[in-house]
Amino acid sequence: MIQNKAPGKDVSIEDMKEKFPLVAKKDSTHFSDFEVAGVTFGSKLIPVMAGPNMVENESLIVETALQVKKAGAHFLRGGAFKPLSFPYRSEKYTETREDGIKWLGIAKKESGLGIITEVMEEKYLDMICDVADILQIGSRNMQNYPLITEAAKTKKPLMIKRHYGASLRDWLGAAEYALYAGNKKVILCERGVSVPHTHKDSSRFLLDLQVVPAAKEITHLPIAVDPSHATFWRPWVKPMALASIAAGCDSVMLEVHPDPENSAVDPLQPIDFSAFGGLMEEMNNIATCIGRSLRDD
Amino acid sequence: MIQNKAPGKDVSIEDMKEKFPLVAKKDSTHFSDFEVAGVTFGSKLIPVMAGPNMVENESLIVETALQVKKAGAHFLRGGAFKPLSFPYRSEKYTETREDGIKWLGIAKKESGLGIITEVMEEKYLDMICDVADILQIGSRNMQNYPLITEAAKTKKPLMIKRHYGASLRDWLGAAEYALYAGNKKVILCERGVSVPHTHKDSSRFLLDLQVVPAAKEITHLPIAVDPSHATFWRPWVKPMALASIAAGCDSVMLEVHPDPENSAVDPLQPIDFSAFGGLMEEMNNIATCIGRSLRDD
Amino acid sequence: MIQNKAPGKDVSIEDMKEKFPLVAKKDSTHFSDFEVAGVTFGSKLIPVMAGPNMVENESLIVETALQVKKAGAHFLRGGAFKPLSFPYRSEKYTETREDGIKWLGIAKKESGLGIITEVMEEKYLDMICDVADILQIGSRNMQNYPLITEAAKTKKPLMIKRHYGASLRDWLGAAEYALYAGNKKVILCERGVSVPHTHKDSSRFLLDLQVVPAAKEITHLPIAVDPSHATFWRPWVKPMALASIAAGCDSVMLEVHPDPENSAVDPLQPIDFSAFGGLMEEMNNIATCIGRSLRDD
Amino acid sequence: MIQNKAPGKDVSIEDMKEKFPLVAKKDSTHFSDFEVAGVTFGSKLIPVMAGPNMVENESLIVETALQVKKAGAHFLRGGAFKPLSFPYRSEKYTETREDGIKWLGIAKKESGLGIITEVMEEKYLDMICDVADILQIGSRNMQNYPLITEAAKTKKPLMIKRHYGASLRDWLGAAEYALYAGNKKVILCERGVSVPHTHKDSSRFLLDLQVVPAAKEITHLPIAVDPSHATFWRPWVKPMALASIAAGCDSVMLEVHPDPENSAVDPLQPIDFSAFGGLMEEMNNIATCIGRSLRDD
Repeated sequence: MIQNKAPGKDVSIEDMKEKFPLVAKKDSTHFSDFEVAGVTFGSKLIPVMAGPNMVENESLIVETALQVKKAGAHFLRGGAFKPLSFPYRSEKYTETREDGIKWLGIAKKESGLGIITEVMEEKYLDMICDVADILQIGSRNMQNYPLITEAAKTKKPLMIKRHYGASLRDWLGAAEYALYAGNKKVILCERGVSVPHTHKDSSRFLLDLQVVPAAKEITHLPIAVDPSHATFWRPWVKPMALASIAAGCDSVMLEVHPDPENSAVDPLQPIDFSAFGGLMEEMNNIATCIGRSLRDD
Repeated sequence: MIQNKAPGKDVSIEDMKEKFPLVAKKDSTHFSDFEVAGVTFGSKLIPVMAGPNMVENESLIVETALQVKKAGAHFLRGGAFKPLSFPYRSEKYTETREDGIKWLGIAKKESGLGIITEVMEEKYLDMICDVADILQIGSRNMQNYPLITEAAKTKKPLMIKRHYGASLRDWLGAAEYALYAGNKKVILCERGVSVPHTHKDSSRFLLDLQVVPAAKEITHLPIAVDPSHATFWRPWVKPMALASIAAGCDSVMLEVHPDPENSAVDPLQPIDFSAFGGLMEEMNNIATCIGRSLRDD
Repeated sequence: MIQNKAPGKDVSIEDMKEKFPLVAKKDSTHFSDFEVAGVTFGSKLIPVMAGPNMVENESLIVETALQVKKAGAHFLRGGAFKPLSFPYRSEKYTETREDGIKWLGIAKKESGLGIITEVMEEKYLDMICDVADILQIGSRNMQNYPLITEAAKTKKPLMIKRHYGASLRDWLGAAEYALYAGNKKVILCERGVSVPHTHKDSSRFLLDLQVVPAAKEITHLPIAVDPSHATFWRPWVKPMALASIAAGCDSVMLEVHPDPENSAVDPLQPIDFSAFGGLMEEMNNIATCIGRSLRDD
Repeated sequence: MIQNKAPGKDVSIEDMKEKFPLVAKKDSTHFSDFEVAGVTFGSKLIPVMAGPNMVENESLIVETALQVKKAGAHFLRGGAFKPLSFPYRSEKYTETREDGIKWLGIAKKESGLGIITEVMEEKYLDMICDVADILQIGSRNMQNYPLITEAAKTKKPLMIKRHYGASLRDWLGAAEYALYAGNKKVILCERGVSVPHTHKDSSRFLLDLQVVPAAKEITHLPIAVDPSHATFWRPWVKPMALASIAAGCDSVMLEVHPDPENSAVDPLQPIDFSAFGGLMEEMNNIATCIGRSLRDD
């Protein structure tokens, strides 16, 4: 099973598929679909997950839930537990943790939307599962296989974000851990790739849309795209969201905030409710062109 | 004008614009449009350039011209002079050079399409200008500033392909040479980026669609995309072509061949006439969603 | 503390240092040194950590310990817990886990060498700390901040391998978590960088030696280099190990196996005892040229 | 000869060698050596090429020639024709072109050093050949095959710098053009690799030292390294120059300037005469450790 290749010898798609038999397509038409909180992934529908980067406080998340629901979103996203590249938190930027999860629960009840939120540690899985409909494995934990395995065992659907330095092979390998642990409801999410720099260091990325057809050639799992984190820049979110739909993705995650410039984190990337409403229309128009839809009916 | 930055100090958009005052936008709404062979670039219209990688022979190029014209293409593309990573040519893979240019001239006459073809050496400029409506500066020559300058001086419109290892800054710098030489009709074309490998070596690329909004934030010049060379793989051409339109590009270049599997070069990437016809429809549908069109009317 | 930059605006070294005040140098001559199992890191001495990728069985690890000790190595390395990109293990390739740790304990006793081994889950920390002198945080867990924090709290020295997709900034940020948790004995280890590929997927890397002077410009922590994992190819290990010393690294990690071609994992990269003995001599010669040494005296 | 591979299928070393039969090693011990201006490349000797980025004026280049000669350099480098990413030149930064070549001729006469300088256009080849002992094909022209072919036909030795975005395969392919044109005296020079950025744009690179053993596994041609351009930062030049020698390179190119901070171009990277003198000693010490030398005797 484990193969080593001399430099210059690369692996073929068939070799790759052998490494992840559960993630691999059985044949070219094999795509899996499954329902989460009444919404189907992997079908004609393209579910949209929208909300703020951080669950900053109760009123913000409830207001956002109601507004994105009104605009047609299918899931509310929001981080209560958030990894950061450094251990320090500003007064403004504080993980709300248990409180955040509770507020997501309130927003869920008020809006009727399903919830997707990130898990970072096994010990909080139970608490988060009480509220979440989809567990997000963040980019930084894409290779934290014990976490993926434990999260998968809860039977909650998982969304595994691609590490910004990961190959398609390593990304699919991470998903194989989830399927191997007995969980068939796995969504993969592209969120921008980066390259290692010695002295040029920022947190911006290049959205890899080519990975959408590339991944769908190999795996039957639905592929989501998050253009907000990739572009890190509000004006580019719309063109890249439209391009994601046109490239054939199965779901879109977007950062939406009532007051983007005052977002507790990454204020350059969220869009406001009005922009989100317009973008939902435009994404749906593009979807219609290729036989898909952002609407359930 | 020439600035040096210590490691960790990067240049801002404003610093960049100073380096290329002619290429830079004057303000956020500044976009240039110009006419080439009766077709306007930089307007609502999204011109499509289609044809084979190589002008293999007269009948192939004439047939392709008539077929892509029928499907709605605006320009015929085809290489008579072609750079290759190695000096050797197979029996099948032979540059047709002077003959190829002549056959392009015949195809132009038969189809009425404008012609875009690559220039590699100053000494052939006159001959190529007799037939070509747009001179293509290939990826490998993006930093061949003497060639760009001489080509620009002919006053023929230029299309400058981004080198697969070039930053946005270096790409715009190459265009500045053309404008500085007095030529205002310059199109920029993204065609996939690569990364340097020590021992993993193939010629495939990652299409950078994020560069479309990024470039349009800085420059007033029209931005084209070539998904065929980037993906190098027929099944990915359609999703990436649709995504290019949705991302806001101003023109699309596509490789089309009557018998793709027997293309003299890169047989994995061209699409056939039937696929091209369908793709034109689908691209036009996407274009319509964002207020643009592939049709002149 | 948390800053967001518009595209094109990058962070300076001073901005970076603000993010990791404990990891940052106070002034240009600030370098920390500390003792581990009687061996000093961060001084004139360049400690060498050698051993097999996997602790395959007791006799293999004991034999290797005795042989690398004889050749002048300062620590025995070997993985009992090993992350893999896929959940499957071949008959040959099996993590030896608790047994492996026990065998490392025996090898330690027989050879007198300090032990470095990888930790992947908090729950095994106690057991591993009974034997290990340095806890290795593997490349894949570089951003598993809860794991780093818990490992740091044990007060055992940590070695944090750079993720193959991580910037210098993110690598130093990971170390800041360890220092913030109260552990001052942290070694950073470069092990090759990669780039994200859509369809070209193997596990080979480019050793980034420029990061050695780059990191030492910013941080006072010792910098190790692992040329075995980076090159993945036996013939390149020696030149890159010598270059690592010449570039100014503070420690070298090398994969050594009694029978490289029959290594349970990655058989193309380990060197045998004889090659290791010769390489120790040559590395010491290079070290001497720059006022350093591989020998304690 | 021309092969196309499906995505995921990469080429082997043997496949690569087929593409460049003249550049490829016949067997593992095959390395070519040749003499240039009384200095042998590809042997025990490691020739050093030193001098300013630009031939700013006569006195600067003559003084530098005498000083680097005194410190043991084998060739004087200096650019009279210089490509720049933008068409503009500051008052200070002016190519000296014909004058520069004349001044290089004077420096050659005064110092007795061989000259290496860049060629950018075929039309200046004769003039430059009157003075130059080695013609440098710059990074930006690595894929300008007509220029390489014409330069090769002069029979002057060529040094081909690796494009910062080029794979090993494309770099060796460029050299094949030179050998195919009948010139056997070709040196390859690594000078740092980059990656394409959408919005993070500067001119700094990552020195790829792993390419030294990688290239020498495939080609018999001598491999030089230029750490000055790669690092772009004076403090890193010394460690990376020493590492280049230790990695097994066959020649080193260094930027040396009488007054680095007032260099007309890239003032952050040149070292002064005193630093160069010390570095020559240290590089020679490292060379001695691996059976090589910077000295002719």
